[in-house]
Amino acid sequence: MNTIIPISPINNLKTRLSEFLTLEERKNLLFNMLRDIFKALKGLNIYAISKDPEILEFCNNLGAKTIEEKGKGLNQALNQAFSVVNEDLLIVPADIPLIRESHIKEIKKLKEEFEAIIAPSRGGGTNLLYLSRASLINLRYEGFSFLKHLEEFKRNKVSYYIYDSFYLSIDINTPEDLGEIFIHGDGSYTKRYLESLNIKVEPKHSSAGRFKIYRE
Amino acid sequence: MNTIIPISPINNLKTRLSEFLTLEERKNLLFNMLRDIFKALKGLNIYAISKDPEILEFCNNLGAKTIEEKGKGLNQALNQAFSVVNEDLLIVPADIPLIRESHIKEIKKLKEEFEAIIAPSRGGGTNLLYLSRASLINLRYEGFSFLKHLEEFKRNKVSYYIYDSFYLSIDINTPEDLGEIFIHGDGSYTKRYLESLNIKVEPKHSSAGRFKIYRE
Repeated sequence: MNTIIPISPINNLKTRLSEFLTLEERKNLLFNMLRDIFKALKGLNIYAISKDPEILEFCNNLGAKTIEEKGKGLNQALNQAFSVVNEDLLIVPADIPLIRESHIKEIKKLKEEFEAIIAPSRGGGTNLLYLSRASLINLRYEGFSFLKHLEEFKRNKVSYYIYDSFYLSIDINTPEDLGEIFIHGDGSYTKRYLESLNIKVEPKHSSAGRFKIYRE
Repeated sequence: MNTIIPISPINNLKTRLSEFLTLEERKNLLFNMLRDIFKALKGLNIYAISKDPEILEFCNNLGAKTIEEKGKGLNQALNQAFSVVNEDLLIVPADIPLIRESHIKEIKKLKEEFEAIIAPSRGGGTNLLYLSRASLINLRYEGFSFLKHLEEFKRNKVSYYIYDSFYLSIDINTPEDLGEIFIHGDGSYTKRYLESLNIKVEPKHSSAGRFKIYRE
């Protein structure tokens, strides 16, 4: 199975974390999330696509092939990557550090039965997308991309499976999102890095599904 | 398998939704969520525990046995329910309408191998808890209950399985949470009810995991 990881340039990186983490820290957060993701993807053929040479170098050192991104936006970046790899491919975002090897194992089994596999993110997005062929659908990573991708599957009569995973749904965009790493990220590079920054997490309400996050 | 659904009284209900929904609407939201939950639990032996006679009557009409809650707080309510049912039991919150029959089917399989099964909520909570015997652990539903329950499993040498489900992680506490129902709740009572209130959902940022929710 081939994997494509599209990665935004560092200066655009996670701007909603910028009141909480410096640019340097956000870069290190990205690198540690990538370490966790590469660990889960071990043994797969990984392609990283980015405009940022430092990110590509980092991914190359982790064993990825690299593609210098030319266009604008996620859909265009992935379509560019499809000119290099266009079969048996899994698109993985760079900000889902709770992904595990067991997810990949399950996806390898499911892809024998389905042409496409999709895992939702919170907020209507798509956090994992497997396509047996790049040409099956048009990519539509914007807005409620989860619904748009389902639409594409139906319109193109693609057999698909919705992969129901909490861990895959957690992408890191806001300080509050970091809380899930503290709860569920034991043993991860990302959690260790956040701990090294003296970030602390407390429950906000009992059983309320929200965090209080602060730095000491 | 037995199921216990603990339910807060209507006037305490979902107060973080009160700027968005009237008390009457929050009550109807609860009732529609319960309809979806009972549909997923079809065929199981269901016990509803609440202080609220109207809620108990509603659950009774859906086929549940009812227990009038005496104590204070969730842990005490469940311990009271354990005096009636204390084996082969699944604790299900009243606010996870995206639960499906397929989850229950999987849990039935998993419980042959594990004494306990736990599904996380966002924010460090516990959204589903299966126990082969009520006496296995002390319930600790407050704060980061997911971590506390794992601690209990380890301390009591209970064999356990973490059930990784996005749909089970979504509990409805805030207006924004309602967004997930619009994305993932097709065919549910809850989504139909929210639509009848003219609630609309839009993406906030592209692929950002957040919603814009408003009423027309």
